[in-house]
Amino acid sequence: MKNFIFQNPTKLVFGKGEIAKLSELLPHDIRLMITFGGGSVKKNGVYEQVMASLKGWDFIEFWGIEPNPRVETLRKAIRIGKENKVDYLLAVGGGSVLDGTKLIAAGIASEEDAWDIVLGKVARQQIPFASVMTVPATGSEMNGGAVITREETREKYPFGGNYPHFSILDPEVAYTLSSHQIACGLADAYTHVLEQYMTTPGQSRIMDRWAEGLLLSIIEIAPGIKANPKDYDLMADYMLAATLALNDFIQMGISQDWATHQIGHELTALHGITHGHTLAIVMPGTFRVLKKQKHDKLLQYGERIFNITNGTEEERVDKAIEKTEDFYRSLGLTTRLSEEGVGIDTIEVISQRFNERQVAFGENKNVTGDLTREILRSSL
Amino acid sequence: MKNFIFQNPTKLVFGKGEIAKLSELLPHDIRLMITFGGGSVKKNGVYEQVMASLKGWDFIEFWGIEPNPRVETLRKAIRIGKENKVDYLLAVGGGSVLDGTKLIAAGIASEEDAWDIVLGKVARQQIPFASVMTVPATGSEMNGGAVITREETREKYPFGGNYPHFSILDPEVAYTLSSHQIACGLADAYTHVLEQYMTTPGQSRIMDRWAEGLLLSIIEIAPGIKANPKDYDLMADYMLAATLALNDFIQMGISQDWATHQIGHELTALHGITHGHTLAIVMPGTFRVLKKQKHDKLLQYGERIFNITNGTEEERVDKAIEKTEDFYRSLGLTTRLSEEGVGIDTIEVISQRFNERQVAFGENKNVTGDLTREILRSSL
Repeated sequence: MKNFIFQNPTKLVFGKGEIAKLSELLPHDIRLMITFGGGSVKKNGVYEQVMASLKGWDFIEFWGIEPNPRVETLRKAIRIGKENKVDYLLAVGGGSVLDGTKLIAAGIASEEDAWDIVLGKVARQQIPFASVMTVPATGSEMNGGAVITREETREKYPFGGNYPHFSILDPEVAYTLSSHQIACGLADAYTHVLEQYMTTPGQSRIMDRWAEGLLLSIIEIAPGIKANPKDYDLMADYMLAATLALNDFIQMGISQDWATHQIGHELTALHGITHGHTLAIVMPGTFRVLKKQKHDKLLQYGERIFNITNGTEEERVDKAIEKTEDFYRSLGLTTRLSEEGVGIDTIEVISQRFNERQVAFGENKNVTGDLTREILRSSL
Repeated sequence: MKNFIFQNPTKLVFGKGEIAKLSELLPHDIRLMITFGGGSVKKNGVYEQVMASLKGWDFIEFWGIEPNPRVETLRKAIRIGKENKVDYLLAVGGGSVLDGTKLIAAGIASEEDAWDIVLGKVARQQIPFASVMTVPATGSEMNGGAVITREETREKYPFGGNYPHFSILDPEVAYTLSSHQIACGLADAYTHVLEQYMTTPGQSRIMDRWAEGLLLSIIEIAPGIKANPKDYDLMADYMLAATLALNDFIQMGISQDWATHQIGHELTALHGITHGHTLAIVMPGTFRVLKKQKHDKLLQYGERIFNITNGTEEERVDKAIEKTEDFYRSLGLTTRLSEEGVGIDTIEVISQRFNERQVAFGENKNVTGDLTREILRSSL
């Protein structure tokens, strides 16, 4: 096990009806801006619940943070926030609204341009922020990360910073999500776990078991939610799984990968494919290309998650990769670039971008532009 | 899943050599008192490491917090702390030193008598405290709980309060623990998990999986550590397991039990049996007496932890209980009261105490004095 420091200060407020606690959770004497997406919270009752809890409060609203939040939009929010001397933000919506809000929090606290903050990788200061999270997927509600898109150049990069003060998660508000949103959310959470799990074996028995516990739970939950998206206990477990998949709890003392995410971000930036969906396409390809490097862990994964115990080691590894792709497909997602009309041209663009940026992603820092080409070709 | 609020602010600093970070982790401008146990930290090098990191710092030392820390001792520390206007405590030692320090932190911040604070169940205020944790067992390094003994009346009660600011855990310092300490620590961590896990089934798939992940890991670690207590990776996983077994991570949205702990505390208070050892004696008895109530979860536990899949349901439940007792014995602990010279008289005292206090412990609040008699008789 590697040495590590763990600290996650976010207060998680979980369960039906908990949005009513908002006025108790927010500090008083703040100049509050509430940030929203495109308006789905007005259809699912969340906006009403927030307004009911904050009756009599003074705040401004910022609407229009889009999926894959754009720095161009967020700059506007930063300007409005500064003009109004906002010192606390509340994101009400999904992972994109909260990710965008994390950058707004950094932009308000700084004189730097918002895109420079993203390129700096870590926000040096942020005003405090919290969330009412309505979409189980990104884990943003209990971590310090965010991913921001620059529309102008079709770039999408992650940056890190502070954690939300608190996040309210009410599984009932997720009942109205579309089946595609749920499929992408499940794929996102599943892949977050794999990015932390599918690394050198034997680093920590416990972290392995906890990652496997999330994978098994997500696999178990998926068909039930598809059949009945208003099953409270299933939705609660899904929502909790999405949070625990990316809140540092399963990355103590172990190495991580994240190459699949970096490649996936390019597919979103260039083709607008939903984040979770890009992962369903790239992850099996990453496994296929890196199957020698990940051989032992793929064996463990195949046995503990899919009960694959027969055949040669190579056959079992192949089977584990196949089962992974099958799982993504079972969610209702395509897993091949060609199914999304993406071809060789895009692969070359991404490969060239990575080579130009001289990046090398993944646990072993070997996922260069050239290796990315192989991964994407294997996912054609 | 039940509604829940989760927040654990403790910074966990984990790994070899990390005690050297102490001077970076402690705030400056504090009036620091460092608390210790009986002196083992002078033998295992921990004291030297602490002094090396705090070279040039001004602090006072309080020595002599005993196993099962006594309010009589802690009152002295509170007096010294107040006299010296101490406003920050650092516990260096095992769970008892830190538990005691939690009460010192409350006592210094209050005018109440220390025992009244314990009887009040929750400390209303505490000065901040941190720890260098040297014994994997209680989880006190990352939770708000503590258990205090009143020697005068042979009583032992838990109370709750703030979490440590930070805790440093270096697995190497645990190399010098005795095999009995390790056995009791493993039993303690294992039972902490069971107290949260062995409740109504189906509350959360994920919490079940995470609890099972800890149980499987502890079972896997135990024989290896016995054979080689200086295996770093085993010791690191054991230390991490003990922390994660009782830091709220596996109790989100679920009910809990803790009857075994309450009964175990009485055995420690009356006979001085080490805490972890009392659990090894009581837990199988609790299972035997409550096996109807816990039937479905015992089946799940038997299958997922011990691979028990053959036989009638009742046979499988019995087998799971048997395997639990076998595990405690495999650690080198006795699991019967008679083996420790404890007989009917003590059982009657505990049963009467519980009846007088009109307590009813456990998930279903049905573990009264009378049911406790049954549990302890089944563990004779």
